[in-house]
Amino acid sequence: MSLLTAADEGRGHRVLEQEPFAGPVAVDQVSLRRSNLSLVLRTLRDTGPRSRARLAADLGLTKATVSGLVSELVTRGLVSEGPAERGAVGRPGLPVRLEGRTICGVGAEVNVHHVATMALDLTGTVVAEHRLSVDTADLDASAVLDRLAELVTATVSDATGRGADPVALTVGVAGLVDTTHGTVRIGPNLGWRDVPVAELLRQRLDVPRLPVLVDNEANLAAVAEVVPGEPSRRDVLVIFGEVGVGGGIIADGHVLRGSKGYAGELGHMTVDPHGRRCGCGRTGCWETTVGLRALLDAAADPDDPVRHPDLALEDRLHELNRRADLGDTRTLAALEQVGHWVGIGAGAMVNALNPGAVVLSGYFAEVGRWMLPAVEAALQEAVLAPDAGGTRVELSTLGFTAAVRGAATASLDTVFHDPTSVDRRVAPTIGGNR
Amino acid sequence: MSLLTAADEGRGHRVLEQEPFAGPVAVDQVSLRRSNLSLVLRTLRDTGPRSRARLAADLGLTKATVSGLVSELVTRGLVSEGPAERGAVGRPGLPVRLEGRTICGVGAEVNVHHVATMALDLTGTVVAEHRLSVDTADLDASAVLDRLAELVTATVSDATGRGADPVALTVGVAGLVDTTHGTVRIGPNLGWRDVPVAELLRQRLDVPRLPVLVDNEANLAAVAEVVPGEPSRRDVLVIFGEVGVGGGIIADGHVLRGSKGYAGELGHMTVDPHGRRCGCGRTGCWETTVGLRALLDAAADPDDPVRHPDLALEDRLHELNRRADLGDTRTLAALEQVGHWVGIGAGAMVNALNPGAVVLSGYFAEVGRWMLPAVEAALQEAVLAPDAGGTRVELSTLGFTAAVRGAATASLDTVFHDPTSVDRRVAPTIGGNR
Repeated sequence: MSLLTAADEGRGHRVLEQEPFAGPVAVDQVSLRRSNLSLVLRTLRDTGPRSRARLAADLGLTKATVSGLVSELVTRGLVSEGPAERGAVGRPGLPVRLEGRTICGVGAEVNVHHVATMALDLTGTVVAEHRLSVDTADLDASAVLDRLAELVTATVSDATGRGADPVALTVGVAGLVDTTHGTVRIGPNLGWRDVPVAELLRQRLDVPRLPVLVDNEANLAAVAEVVPGEPSRRDVLVIFGEVGVGGGIIADGHVLRGSKGYAGELGHMTVDPHGRRCGCGRTGCWETTVGLRALLDAAADPDDPVRHPDLALEDRLHELNRRADLGDTRTLAALEQVGHWVGIGAGAMVNALNPGAVVLSGYFAEVGRWMLPAVEAALQEAVLAPDAGGTRVELSTLGFTAAVRGAATASLDTVFHDPTSVDRRVAPTIGGNR
Repeated sequence: MSLLTAADEGRGHRVLEQEPFAGPVAVDQVSLRRSNLSLVLRTLRDTGPRSRARLAADLGLTKATVSGLVSELVTRGLVSEGPAERGAVGRPGLPVRLEGRTICGVGAEVNVHHVATMALDLTGTVVAEHRLSVDTADLDASAVLDRLAELVTATVSDATGRGADPVALTVGVAGLVDTTHGTVRIGPNLGWRDVPVAELLRQRLDVPRLPVLVDNEANLAAVAEVVPGEPSRRDVLVIFGEVGVGGGIIADGHVLRGSKGYAGELGHMTVDPHGRRCGCGRTGCWETTVGLRALLDAAADPDDPVRHPDLALEDRLHELNRRADLGDTRTLAALEQVGHWVGIGAGAMVNALNPGAVVLSGYFAEVGRWMLPAVEAALQEAVLAPDAGGTRVELSTLGFTAAVRGAATASLDTVFHDPTSVDRRVAPTIGGNR
């Protein structure tokens, strides 16, 4: 019989769980075992390699219990035991560590300007990556998903070629997502309405057993910003800007989803009732002040080459950075103005959520260094709590891969939550060298 | 050795827990036992009386384990076993139920117009209640806490006179609260700054062992709206209006506190950059459009008797309700206008949080029936998700007792979380009749 160290359950990173509340549930031996396997695996992820003896001590489990759990994780190819790293002090037991070679989580992203995929192994290392510029607004959903399916197929093929079996596919889409059915209800900037993304992708893929999950792009960008085991990243607000603006809220280590999974729709918050008309039909939405179009409108005349339709997003931002570097007044003023409005909108959310960090992601991360002083000034002004409630403003270091990386991380989370979802393999040599 | 049914841990109602994240923790036998006692107690709270056999089946524990746990809870006076209720079908074992007679949680509240206390027994029944009209803005914090301490003393005396020992005191204050130190950092409408409420109250009370907790009033009003075991009350936004406006956010069954505990400060969200100057020095705060003063300004001239300084809040609202009942145009228009702004501000939060319900509490609950159509219309308009994301607008049924009731509930939560915090008593007769 295995002990269950439950205190952890309420604290672990369960970013994609959406179990409806049903009160206390029956816990049988199988689920007890599963929970303990999950605990060991998450401990190795959050705190790094450690010996069986150390795991037992850290988790309050007996050594016999931990040995049984580690052995099972080894047979499933999820952890390995090897020689201590150089420089280890004393004579520790063989450290147990996450094994990156056998499985991978696959992420995919549909955005206005591109589709992309990424596969991450269990240690978070990139196994494969693909990206295609697509003007999604000019294509119907079916044609966009054709392109995406090709990238997913290539990514799965790359990964399996290296021996890493995909455990799940998570697709991030800019819009309101019904995560239960894998359907995009509304994707305003894609022009999508009620698109059954999971179903359409399954039809296009030759991997019948692969679970396909769909989630909001900004939620996934937020997942990518959680640093397992890092307290200052337990409560995070991620503001994700591209053509539209989305938010991802991490509260106490989990994505805040709300009752139907629509949480984080920050782009259409009214920040100025007397402001500009938004594409959604409303007036003064945050997106009209901080979306990519707002920046371009302020920074460049309509015939400015930086606005040429064929120019890729990265190239536009590169050009704006170049001008700012040269001290161009109009560019700097535009970035400051957008930064001011970022701070206004962020301020409302910081008052409500008091996150440890506001992380600026998407295009904000690329040009954010010019916006930061204005963001911080507006935030200090807007937040009631002293010193903006201790909230720091940070630029994401993940660039435009944040959402697709978060999607792959979410796919991996299915394994961290239930290691028994990965089939047993032939047991490797005990304590096998690498 | 006791089994730990951990799956519940992440789901239970742990409304006042604030353990810092520290990754997986060592779990020893004592904490395992404690967790299992907590699980049984919370199950009885959330799902009602049930036999030991039924508890064992529901929780996946052996009957022997459950019997041991129930016996311990009986010796601590927290549950009792008695004859089945009339009408029970079949021949169930003796039902185990929460025992309401032995302990109580004490709540207290400091608001601009009054101080109040309430004691609730373990079943949530009111044991004692006190309330005093005080113009807190005219007194210094010390004098206000003198009054409050008198009420707490009277409440504790009432409760212990009935055999119910207080387990904790939780104090709700309208303002930013440092919950770790029990200090009010800023109470704008009270004129408080860095008031060590917990310490000052301990000095004034003759109950040295009683834990004293301090929390934001709106957070506690939100705690009172959680219905244990009720899925539609898992994600709730409570908007609490008095002179100021506060918010309490329940996400997945827990109060959302943010990194420093300052979450839920909705009153100073900017809703109209071109609007009125707020008491906090900013312009266009939500409070300037929906706070009590905004309603009175719109509904009545300065010399209108409804605005007389001596009139109690309840009497003002009673008078406004009376006028609205008579069809008074100005009153109805004022309520509609405030309702519109309630919907605008709620809309930003519903986009961000997608709660199952927005609960209007405090003064909104008293006159909300006149505001509701305007609130709902503005919310529908403001929320991007179809049908306002499924969010329903509801009026609190708790009246002005919401915060003090939530405070008492929070005090009780210390026992639901750790039943061993209550001392053992002489064991009652096994299966004792009541």
